[in-house]
Amino acid sequence: MHLFRHIALLPILGLAVFTANAETVARVESPGKVLAVELDITEGRLAYRVLRFGEPVIDDSRLGFQLRGAEKLERNLALSSQTTRSHDETWEQPWGESRFVRDHHNELRARFTETIAPNRSFDVLVRVFDDGLGFRYELPEQPNLDEVIIDDELTEFALATPATAWWIPAGEWNRYEYLYDRTPVEQVTQAHTPMTVRTDDGLHIAFHEAALVDYAGMWLRRTEGRRFRAQLAPASEGWKVRRNAPFHTPWRTLQITDSAAALYASSDLILNLNEPNRLGDVSWFEPAKYIGIWWSLHLDTETWATGRKHGATTKNTKRYIDFAAEHGFRGVLVEGWNPGWDGDWFGNGYDFDFTRATPDFDIEALSAYATSKGVRLVGHHETACAVSHYEEQMEAAFAMNARLGIDSVKTGYVCDAGGIERRLDDGTVAREWHDGQWNSNHHQRVLEAAARHKVAINAHEPIKDTGLRRTYPNWVSREGARGMEYAAWGNPTNPPEHETNLVFTRMLSGPMDFTPGILSLQGRGQAIQTTLAKQLALYVVLYCPLQMAADLPENYARHMEAFQFIKDVPADWAETRVLDGEIGDYVTFARKDRNSEDWYLGSLTDEHGRLLQVPLSFLDPGRTYTAQIYRDGDGAHWQDKPFAFAREQREVTSADVLTLKLAAGGGQAIRFVAR
Amino acid sequence: MHLFRHIALLPILGLAVFTANAETVARVESPGKVLAVELDITEGRLAYRVLRFGEPVIDDSRLGFQLRGAEKLERNLALSSQTTRSHDETWEQPWGESRFVRDHHNELRARFTETIAPNRSFDVLVRVFDDGLGFRYELPEQPNLDEVIIDDELTEFALATPATAWWIPAGEWNRYEYLYDRTPVEQVTQAHTPMTVRTDDGLHIAFHEAALVDYAGMWLRRTEGRRFRAQLAPASEGWKVRRNAPFHTPWRTLQITDSAAALYASSDLILNLNEPNRLGDVSWFEPAKYIGIWWSLHLDTETWATGRKHGATTKNTKRYIDFAAEHGFRGVLVEGWNPGWDGDWFGNGYDFDFTRATPDFDIEALSAYATSKGVRLVGHHETACAVSHYEEQMEAAFAMNARLGIDSVKTGYVCDAGGIERRLDDGTVAREWHDGQWNSNHHQRVLEAAARHKVAINAHEPIKDTGLRRTYPNWVSREGARGMEYAAWGNPTNPPEHETNLVFTRMLSGPMDFTPGILSLQGRGQAIQTTLAKQLALYVVLYCPLQMAADLPENYARHMEAFQFIKDVPADWAETRVLDGEIGDYVTFARKDRNSEDWYLGSLTDEHGRLLQVPLSFLDPGRTYTAQIYRDGDGAHWQDKPFAFAREQREVTSADVLTLKLAAGGGQAIRFVAR
Repeated sequence: MHLFRHIALLPILGLAVFTANAETVARVESPGKVLAVELDITEGRLAYRVLRFGEPVIDDSRLGFQLRGAEKLERNLALSSQTTRSHDETWEQPWGESRFVRDHHNELRARFTETIAPNRSFDVLVRVFDDGLGFRYELPEQPNLDEVIIDDELTEFALATPATAWWIPAGEWNRYEYLYDRTPVEQVTQAHTPMTVRTDDGLHIAFHEAALVDYAGMWLRRTEGRRFRAQLAPASEGWKVRRNAPFHTPWRTLQITDSAAALYASSDLILNLNEPNRLGDVSWFEPAKYIGIWWSLHLDTETWATGRKHGATTKNTKRYIDFAAEHGFRGVLVEGWNPGWDGDWFGNGYDFDFTRATPDFDIEALSAYATSKGVRLVGHHETACAVSHYEEQMEAAFAMNARLGIDSVKTGYVCDAGGIERRLDDGTVAREWHDGQWNSNHHQRVLEAAARHKVAINAHEPIKDTGLRRTYPNWVSREGARGMEYAAWGNPTNPPEHETNLVFTRMLSGPMDFTPGILSLQGRGQAIQTTLAKQLALYVVLYCPLQMAADLPENYARHMEAFQFIKDVPADWAETRVLDGEIGDYVTFARKDRNSEDWYLGSLTDEHGRLLQVPLSFLDPGRTYTAQIYRDGDGAHWQDKPFAFAREQREVTSADVLTLKLAAGGGQAIRFVAR
Repeated sequence: MHLFRHIALLPILGLAVFTANAETVARVESPGKVLAVELDITEGRLAYRVLRFGEPVIDDSRLGFQLRGAEKLERNLALSSQTTRSHDETWEQPWGESRFVRDHHNELRARFTETIAPNRSFDVLVRVFDDGLGFRYELPEQPNLDEVIIDDELTEFALATPATAWWIPAGEWNRYEYLYDRTPVEQVTQAHTPMTVRTDDGLHIAFHEAALVDYAGMWLRRTEGRRFRAQLAPASEGWKVRRNAPFHTPWRTLQITDSAAALYASSDLILNLNEPNRLGDVSWFEPAKYIGIWWSLHLDTETWATGRKHGATTKNTKRYIDFAAEHGFRGVLVEGWNPGWDGDWFGNGYDFDFTRATPDFDIEALSAYATSKGVRLVGHHETACAVSHYEEQMEAAFAMNARLGIDSVKTGYVCDAGGIERRLDDGTVAREWHDGQWNSNHHQRVLEAAARHKVAINAHEPIKDTGLRRTYPNWVSREGARGMEYAAWGNPTNPPEHETNLVFTRMLSGPMDFTPGILSLQGRGQAIQTTLAKQLALYVVLYCPLQMAADLPENYARHMEAFQFIKDVPADWAETRVLDGEIGDYVTFARKDRNSEDWYLGSLTDEHGRLLQVPLSFLDPGRTYTAQIYRDGDGAHWQDKPFAFAREQREVTSADVLTLKLAAGGGQAIRFVAR
């Protein structure tokens, strides 16, 4: 692996010829000539299409904006200039799924100008990789365009061929916490991104966006057939976005690959389309595993509220710190540590205090005790959606965290149907969407405040991930999907296919704090729908640089053999490979530890057992590894026999092919210890 | 790799308890406990079911026979005995896709006896592997069962879950030469085997049979929903099969895997269910490539018939022999070499003489000339379905072949709608199905006669392959599907998806004489729907131990760079791996030469371009190879730019991952030369 950087300005491809009829005015191909994006003008209206090996993937799809207080920006357009360039760079991540990321794309910048007054201009910037593309609008500074109020973005995505979609609904209050639906594309109503489809021809396509900054999140509303339109999350004012030129939109991204495995890998383009690190040295953030006073709250054996069942007590926390120190976990999350939980806090977080602990939680002593044992408390800032209230305290809160060595904070945005609460200048409260423009800016403010104090953020009930971790590497993780907590009390609970759906949808966008590792396999009155071995596999499959071991210490004590894998598995990777998989069916990951020569494998399946052949070609050639195998035992089954489990060991090399036998609802985890 | 043989008699699992209601009376699991087969009796009727990881794959399906002149053999049955055993053996093929084949299965033999007169008995013998199973009926010698005339086999296959099927129709006169249809299982009418399905849950299943000897071929007739019944090809007498006890049926086979790639590999079980080699030393058969006077006949630039355009002339054949010698081809097929082609021979082959050449074809001189240059003529026996007529001559014909060094013969059974002609004792002619009992025995007679003279058989318009090449290793190849000839004149021609369908259907049954390598990409007035590179990939993808380079010598002379791959690629393999693929979409094979340390890769796609990542883990670790890459050129497309082609070379090791870019309708072929 070597780093290189190469930017070349290519000659302009040719001057466009203007006619009244449909005409391709600009075109850019991916470096390997796999994908091509063409821009067309038909009677002054602009459209794009995407071709793969010469065949249409996205048919002619409109571009433009509907504006408030101004004419639509979509008619009477002509190409006024275009440039292309080629870019090939390999850059290093401070932490991540892979240490190095290659950014190899060709870029087209095409400027379109209205041929009649007010003669406004905008650029369409397209970057096309061999495995996907992104495009965005850029509105340059210009005489007749200053404040821009976007009522609707007119961007379309017209899928060229029939396909099956995996999707969750957008435009409902409950953020992203749904089970994924699998339907023909024609049955999608309005979906969040990433939305993933598999065409009847076997092509895998994911629709998403990159670098969502000071803008509204994009939903995909199906307008007819297989045609979708960008539907921006509204602002409380009624419009969608308000900006002043110059500005640019987020990148609208398409990942396009033959296999599901390649689709996952193509997510690198989301990072590549984000700006480089703006925080400088972030070595103060240490990817790590944590435990916490958390699962007990979901089991209702302890409570956030103070009183007899209060979980966040000094004594209880000390027990967790001891357990963390003994078993090598760096973090101990404590929820319910601060005042505000005793009343009806749900969607009403005005009582929360983020700089003061409850009387039974000696935060000063506990922080010191933790630090003395090499452990750090993990902070918790549940806003319950009183977001302006939280913003008033956050600077002081992060300062306190930093002083106490609490270098990561889990934030929370549990709202009722009203949404995010934003206090206006006149003291009244407006309600905003989680993924509206205002809240995207809120997250930005949190990140920047936290960064000033060298605190990492793990947001729950967040805005979706659009790769901003590249620019702000202290935004290390988030929730943004149905996590393990739904296995505690969800109705329905998370079914066996849930994680295999997540991998090829939600996980395309970035790390998730799924909180795996419930080895007791027991929620609140309901069983967890996985085998024991699958809980281990989740540590390799679901990437998270702050990875939780979510079960109770006393439960781990009953499963020490399996727990060993959770103790061993790292949270930071030098390399990631998806070896095999099908959306919603099964998946196998191999990842190399960033701090050793060891490799890890995680494989998991839905409600069907699988027999998979896995060549170990990812291992270093010529090296022998001890494979510590944690697998489903004979007869294991998520329903009847979830605890059937076996651990075995063998010597392997890169020339070996392993047979993985995954039980129904099962999985397998392997540590390859380099010799 | 080592050989071992281990047979163990396991204790009988337990005595069955008889009740009047549904009851599982016998059960056998695969060695890795992946599959289980259960036999049930419900009120005296017998059924089986197949489970995978505890979930049903085949729901309760009937077993039994409808007999002529006797009561149905399917009621009032009770289990009278059962035994199980375990078998693990690795055996060596004289030639094949892999040198060694592992046969690892558990076997159940269950005897069922009528509880009332005539108290007939039969055995159900089940062998279950981790990736599939076979079962057959055995009718032992017994007092009340001597001659058995089977009107119908009642065997059912009730697919448990919704699925898509790839299939061709059975019960029509035109044998197997259809384009594969892809439909929901519920739209199959009556299909030939192998029929392949993929369930909505991602399971891949192929239905076929093994060791079809002295029996009628099995079609699959859908009776309702996803339930199929064995429909045996009829005999001219009206019944299906006539045998005397003791006898057994062919194996009814199910291959069951998670991936398409594994489905292909699971075909080993077809061979494993056939009897070992009965011919002894067959080292006289040499897997090889051949050219021939053949494509010109399909282009109609030369003719089978004598006269001005006669292809099989001494002079023309000499030219082919010279070309073969120069470029390292062992065989030269000459069609039209014998009398019988000048009249209306189609479906009327009574004029064919198999022991005498046409006057313009000096077979003695040509054989000698060929042998002197290390080349062998390949014989041709087109019967045009006058099969009894052919049988009268075949012993003498094979004797002549042997004398002349013609050690392989392509046979042919081009019939009209009447079918195979069988002369009865009274001199009249009965018409039989290609896959009826009589013709299955005809093929057996040909094989045995040929073997006596050390001649290998490559049958066109044959009965389907059921793995008999294990028992009779001189049955080296056959057609039995739409081959390249349809690209010459087929209406419709073979579409770009054709070969990707074949791989996971027809090719599961065994080698096919597809006759690839038409580098001119031109049929009779119609273009061939592949790129140039795809023609090369076919040599690795479509296995055939007698592999043709089917184009004209003068066409190869125009494509010498690409032709080099055809010259290099072997026809016999030490090892085969299917690296990746989806039915009807794309597939990538790696195969190791049996006579060197070189590996070969072939990858091809349907009408859609593909970008595939291929880890080279099949290569020997620690060794460097020169990869000679034959790929689609920039902008290649089967329709617009089929000749765009590039050859390049690089050094690789097993640690490398290659990116294959396949054009729409394209492919790639690579030789890895061991250093």
